[in-house]
Amino acid sequence: MASIFTKIINREIPSQIIAEDDRHIAFLDIMPLVKGHVLVVPKEEVNYIFDMEPMALADLQIFAQKVAKAMDKTIKCTRIGVAVIGLEVPHVHIHLVPLKTMDDINFTRPKLKLTGEELAEIADQIRAGF
Amino acid sequence: MASIFTKIINREIPSQIIAEDDRHIAFLDIMPLVKGHVLVVPKEEVNYIFDMEPMALADLQIFAQKVAKAMDKTIKCTRIGVAVIGLEVPHVHIHLVPLKTMDDINFTRPKLKLTGEELAEIADQIRAGF
Repeated sequence: MASIFTKIINREIPSQIIAEDDRHIAFLDIMPLVKGHVLVVPKEEVNYIFDMEPMALADLQIFAQKVAKAMDKTIKCTRIGVAVIGLEVPHVHIHLVPLKTMDDINFTRPKLKLTGEELAEIADQIRAGF
Repeated sequence: MASIFTKIINREIPSQIIAEDDRHIAFLDIMPLVKGHVLVVPKEEVNYIFDMEPMALADLQIFAQKVAKAMDKTIKCTRIGVAVIGLEVPHVHIHLVPLKTMDDINFTRPKLKLTGEELAEIADQIRAGF
């Protein structure tokens, strides 16, 4: 069965896409830790990041860097934090999280509930950073 | 002034080194979230991971992958989680954290206090995974 991220890639599930190329996509997490929380995903459905081919992993990280630079320019934060956990969705995803404090990247705390309008606004903001 | 990680690289501060090449080093975090928590560091003293040259970032990630694979083989966990936060030491470091639950990679919770002997034993264990 296609992962939820593959459904986003295939436009079967709507999302706020921030950036995309032939092998990668970045979109807003709909259950963000903070405003501007982005997921960076390889289009190939691999479960575990360290099972990726080294060159594919390198490309994914370089793509994530471009997204993080756009976030740095447009989202008010100290820097962009990174997390890869992968205990839930079995499709590699890098969390890019605008940080002010350590608690901003604590995945055990309650997620924000943003409206579709708020998400659209944040996505527009980040897209302007490219 | 040299960062604490540069001092580790230069052997001015002792540490349990897991792996090293000419541009990267991996050693045990002495304030680990869980047993087997490793830091992967570029020898060049860059403050922010997304300021790295893309090729240097890619190489660092491929080095981290080799370390994570050794950890996967030798440390009892579901998978190796990744975090880059960087609000404290101004020298890039990737946290590789053996995960069983989401809370294992929550940086707001108290760190473990391990003896030098315990750290040495864990380091030996991981080194055997290469």
